[in-house]
Amino acid sequence: MASQKPPPSLPQNPELRKDKINNKWVVFSPARSKRPSDFKSKSPVSDPNLTQSQTCPFCIGHEHECAPEIFRVLDDSDSYSNWRIRVIQNLYPALSRDIQPHNPGLENPDCGFVPGFGFHDVVIETTTHPVHLSDLPGSGVGEVLMAYKKRALQIASFDDIQYIQVFKNHGASAGASMSHSHSQIIALPIVPPSVSTRLAAMKEHFEQTGNCILCEKLPKELLIYESRHFVSVVPYAASYAFEIWIIPRVHSAHFHDIDKEKADDLGGLLKLMLKKMALQLNNPPFNYMIHTSPLRIDDSQLSCSHWFLQIVPQLTVLAGFEIATGCHINPVFPQDAAKILREVNVEDSEEIFKEVNVEDSEEIPKEVKVDC
Amino acid sequence: MASQKPPPSLPQNPELRKDKINNKWVVFSPARSKRPSDFKSKSPVSDPNLTQSQTCPFCIGHEHECAPEIFRVLDDSDSYSNWRIRVIQNLYPALSRDIQPHNPGLENPDCGFVPGFGFHDVVIETTTHPVHLSDLPGSGVGEVLMAYKKRALQIASFDDIQYIQVFKNHGASAGASMSHSHSQIIALPIVPPSVSTRLAAMKEHFEQTGNCILCEKLPKELLIYESRHFVSVVPYAASYAFEIWIIPRVHSAHFHDIDKEKADDLGGLLKLMLKKMALQLNNPPFNYMIHTSPLRIDDSQLSCSHWFLQIVPQLTVLAGFEIATGCHINPVFPQDAAKILREVNVEDSEEIFKEVNVEDSEEIPKEVKVDC
Repeated sequence: MASQKPPPSLPQNPELRKDKINNKWVVFSPARSKRPSDFKSKSPVSDPNLTQSQTCPFCIGHEHECAPEIFRVLDDSDSYSNWRIRVIQNLYPALSRDIQPHNPGLENPDCGFVPGFGFHDVVIETTTHPVHLSDLPGSGVGEVLMAYKKRALQIASFDDIQYIQVFKNHGASAGASMSHSHSQIIALPIVPPSVSTRLAAMKEHFEQTGNCILCEKLPKELLIYESRHFVSVVPYAASYAFEIWIIPRVHSAHFHDIDKEKADDLGGLLKLMLKKMALQLNNPPFNYMIHTSPLRIDDSQLSCSHWFLQIVPQLTVLAGFEIATGCHINPVFPQDAAKILREVNVEDSEEIFKEVNVEDSEEIPKEVKVDC
Repeated sequence: MASQKPPPSLPQNPELRKDKINNKWVVFSPARSKRPSDFKSKSPVSDPNLTQSQTCPFCIGHEHECAPEIFRVLDDSDSYSNWRIRVIQNLYPALSRDIQPHNPGLENPDCGFVPGFGFHDVVIETTTHPVHLSDLPGSGVGEVLMAYKKRALQIASFDDIQYIQVFKNHGASAGASMSHSHSQIIALPIVPPSVSTRLAAMKEHFEQTGNCILCEKLPKELLIYESRHFVSVVPYAASYAFEIWIIPRVHSAHFHDIDKEKADDLGGLLKLMLKKMALQLNNPPFNYMIHTSPLRIDDSQLSCSHWFLQIVPQLTVLAGFEIATGCHINPVFPQDAAKILREVNVEDSEEIFKEVNVEDSEEIPKEVKVDC
């Protein structure tokens, strides 16, 4: 993204920037907004109530109320009942693992119809109701990321799955129907349109420049924080105010190739970014999404496709203009958002990385496979 | 869309359908939902309060509190102060009409930057605070559509404008910041990504079949209502539950080519669809968007690009999966939504069209141009 250096500053004039990674335009319109530093969520996510744990199926002790478990990660006691993370089926799956992936009688490419074969799983990130993901230690967030990886590798063995989307919805207005901290994995029998577009755009950049666009040096004014293996930035043409990307420093096409050391490092950086966002923006509802590559891509695509994690605080409503055009209107310039997020002081932020950067720790969390 | 006939019904199984017009996939997932007929908005739009008109800048008598007026449509008294519709500048425009459209020193195609030259206008649809658009007679809605057309033609004369987006946000959670009935027009110096994608998909279909995809016969089970010049349907691969498209029967690439007779007919059909939606779905927040063609397209594109109006009731939250993949999860099959909307009984629906289908009425509404 070196070529995407912000142009000379014209603070009060709107401008359009091309998001070269997703091949879309974003309208930056500071006149529509208060000062960037005054941006706060009007509907902050409140802390889950401890008493809700009596009725929450994701809390420890309520496992029997959930859809079938796929695997669990145990705590240090190694006792089966003492889990730290559970990966389960979604009780209301968007896709079905129980139907024929291919039914030549039904599938008709001409009418654009594919049976809804796929997976829709839930990752319960903690046993305890009032704990948010960012309350876990960096290595605890890393353990959640390693659970995503393990489940992605299991799913990748199904020939009919083309793409695996890991995402988290936090807060009702970001789409979370349960307040207990969790994320989701949906595995699709097609490559989604946004992914095809991104892949094509990254390939075009590679062919033009010989570089992967996300391996290029990033403009300093967009940086928020650099950890050992990752860098967090506000992208040059962020669609959303205070959107953050966390990008691996070394080229990697698939999230599921992450190792434990990198997952712990990413866990620390993700925790830090969520803490900064919560402090600066009044604990907003948010989504994060892991943008990886399709499962079945050739070598030429591997070298130009680079995975990253996108965090989107939900501060504004998408309306008719965005639905119609695919252009977002962002009231905060990325360099201003990055500066503000850089300067948010998170207590003990250095501790996060001291704790996770243990290079010699290659121990894999203890896991018990129940079903996949 | 003849080829997009729904496949044999498998009511409880999810399926993916290709939206060939927007080149994207939609996941249909009935298991995640209640019965289609039980779908209701949880945050209905309440009727605007008459007392709000004392402070509302869009109400008659408050014209001086608004940004500059562009033109007004007068009522039958032909007195300047007795307007029916006003088109004004947006007080907080996303784009600026006051900057240089091209500044070669700043514009750098390599970094994907364009100055934010453009227009952002507001169409005040009524003088009176508690009146919704669908409370107007069909011909009154038609008059609003003719105001869109007039403003679009004015804007089209600027060489640097590439695309004009007309849209309406109704209700706060659909993005409306004012409760007084209004719509918006944003004119852009670029062709938005969704529009380029749609144009390319329509062109591909034309090249494969020799037909414009929206001129093809529609499957009967997706139809809601047919008026003289338009047809309303739930599209085969609707992204949103109970989404409606209104499509001109005769091929037309640009909305701004509409004439008064067709605008009145469309006004009646739009009114009918909004009434049906409000009755069936508990007065949901909604957006509508007019999907027209870019201003500067060649003859080969004119013959495959067909404008339409999309109505989207806002019933669910877009979450991490949709943001990441561009795939929507729709819990209601289009044929079920169409059947339900067909059967919603709107009182006096025949009156709407009796009143608007006056073929010999070619009188243009009285307009006073103040500025553009």
